[in-house]
Amino acid sequence: MNHPITIALDAMGGDHAPEAAIRGGIWAARDFGLTVQLVGLPAVIEAELTKHNVKGLNLPIIPASQIIEMHEHPSVAVKNKKDSSMAVALNLVKTGQSDAFVTAGNSGGAMAAALFTLGRIKGIKRPALGTIFPSENACGYTFLLDVGANTEVRPEYLLQFAFMGHYYAEKVLQVPQPRIALLSIGEEEDKGSQLVQEAMPMLKQSGLNFIGNVEGKDIPSGLADVVVTDGFTGNVYLKGAQGVAKFLLKALEREIRARPLATAGALLARSAFKALQNRMDYREFGGGSLLGVNGIVVVAHGRSDAYAIRNAIRVAKQATENQVVTTIAQGMGNGKARVD
Amino acid sequence: MNHPITIALDAMGGDHAPEAAIRGGIWAARDFGLTVQLVGLPAVIEAELTKHNVKGLNLPIIPASQIIEMHEHPSVAVKNKKDSSMAVALNLVKTGQSDAFVTAGNSGGAMAAALFTLGRIKGIKRPALGTIFPSENACGYTFLLDVGANTEVRPEYLLQFAFMGHYYAEKVLQVPQPRIALLSIGEEEDKGSQLVQEAMPMLKQSGLNFIGNVEGKDIPSGLADVVVTDGFTGNVYLKGAQGVAKFLLKALEREIRARPLATAGALLARSAFKALQNRMDYREFGGGSLLGVNGIVVVAHGRSDAYAIRNAIRVAKQATENQVVTTIAQGMGNGKARVD
Repeated sequence: MNHPITIALDAMGGDHAPEAAIRGGIWAARDFGLTVQLVGLPAVIEAELTKHNVKGLNLPIIPASQIIEMHEHPSVAVKNKKDSSMAVALNLVKTGQSDAFVTAGNSGGAMAAALFTLGRIKGIKRPALGTIFPSENACGYTFLLDVGANTEVRPEYLLQFAFMGHYYAEKVLQVPQPRIALLSIGEEEDKGSQLVQEAMPMLKQSGLNFIGNVEGKDIPSGLADVVVTDGFTGNVYLKGAQGVAKFLLKALEREIRARPLATAGALLARSAFKALQNRMDYREFGGGSLLGVNGIVVVAHGRSDAYAIRNAIRVAKQATENQVVTTIAQGMGNGKARVD
Repeated sequence: MNHPITIALDAMGGDHAPEAAIRGGIWAARDFGLTVQLVGLPAVIEAELTKHNVKGLNLPIIPASQIIEMHEHPSVAVKNKKDSSMAVALNLVKTGQSDAFVTAGNSGGAMAAALFTLGRIKGIKRPALGTIFPSENACGYTFLLDVGANTEVRPEYLLQFAFMGHYYAEKVLQVPQPRIALLSIGEEEDKGSQLVQEAMPMLKQSGLNFIGNVEGKDIPSGLADVVVTDGFTGNVYLKGAQGVAKFLLKALEREIRARPLATAGALLARSAFKALQNRMDYREFGGGSLLGVNGIVVVAHGRSDAYAIRNAIRVAKQATENQVVTTIAQGMGNGKARVD
């Protein structure tokens, strides 16, 4: 890639759009030296841009007349709104005018639109949404997929998720020979759902560095680099972890406030608390990567603020630089991850 | 119930048995004024008892010549070991010589043995393992089931889990009109797996205080009093939460140690940290209750220490006092939770 990296940003997507999306786009353009295409209603985008100093930044406005709202039914919205910011942005990726697409909008809509516009990488049965998860691993993270693209999966999809996770961990997280595991409810081979038990022999024969089953507790402890599961379980897990972290930090605050000495102590420890909060903050991770479609697609949290959008763009940049799509396509080409 | 409550404790079950089990049994007998039957190899139990002052406590030894080991295949072990501590203890419950059975042994074995010996409550399709989970609710907990008894479930099982959770929350947690929710990946009705979408209308028509779908983050935040899911998802969730809590507390310790001022502060805040740690400690909750079998069965964590065993016995005591089995049986009798 010789041209500067160009990201198509859905300026209209997310609970706090357009303000948060556009501010995040500006932030990323400045911090990472990227071109960030702001896709959406030109009048709205222009009005937002006047609030910021954007001198010297590459922030072209790309018009799109429609918006897929947060609570629209994904496939219906994608079918009916051909000029949505998502559709237009994805078309930029498809035609090579952008390197990647980033949105905090309706995540089902984003995935449906991406599949519809970009199509699947040849041989891939189902795209999967993957995200990094804080852990004790050397790189600080475990890659978890699927976290929400497929509520119903088949064993062979899990095999392909494992391959995609392998490539992502190797290329983007720079983990050599990533350890791949299957999420289950016990380490023993005969434990787990029928799905897990059927996927197990496929993963064993995959040639990947497959380490077997792991349990829910083993994701943060860093037993594996890539953990594979269906999109229902992965999504419940991810949101559960966020909820537990929030609950714990709130409970800690309450316990501290109830004790005068502890309150004094907590003031001294404030920077440590802050660092911990950041460690579990989804805004730091920048959203999930939709792997398996013919292009780079990053789906950020609907509640994303500008900082989360900035980081989602960073994820898209890393995937672009590390040629995630080409790598997966080549991997599929060599036949190992092919399933019928 | 006029006689003092009698608990049949598997003295041989758990990673730290017999020491931890027996010490926990003694502790519970003393703290709660219970009779705790120590079931297992008499010579082993007697040798342990000599290490403690058990004067005035009711700790009868009930001989059982076999042990179901932690890694045995549940149904095979139950079939082959008719004189295991689990089988003997469950038989005491069946014949009315004990009010409840408590074990930290092979959890699959415990569930299989309970089902085999006690049978299901009339009308119940599948027993479920339920546990309290720390949350922002008034009582401090949300009741989550199934957390591991059934890896594959059908929508009508979820309906019955909801009824059993309702009775448990009402009777044991003393929550009036408990709010029941279905664990899913979005609040919208059309989100979630096929299983969740099929269970939804059944729960709506159940007459229970059903509040709809909740996400993983909503369990600790206390949006519902009872959250219903399949045993695979529930188990992954529960262990994931334990893992995340452990990870966070470790990370906090590390952040604090890296800062001299914070280290000083943390010393002052130590009691607050300790309170928080206890809040998330599985040892406090005392293990899961197997609901739907004809008797009270509490399955504690395999890693249970004496304190965890003590608390598992407390859970069994509460279930006995609040007549959980009779209540579920009566509920089934009135036909609302009956499915064909």
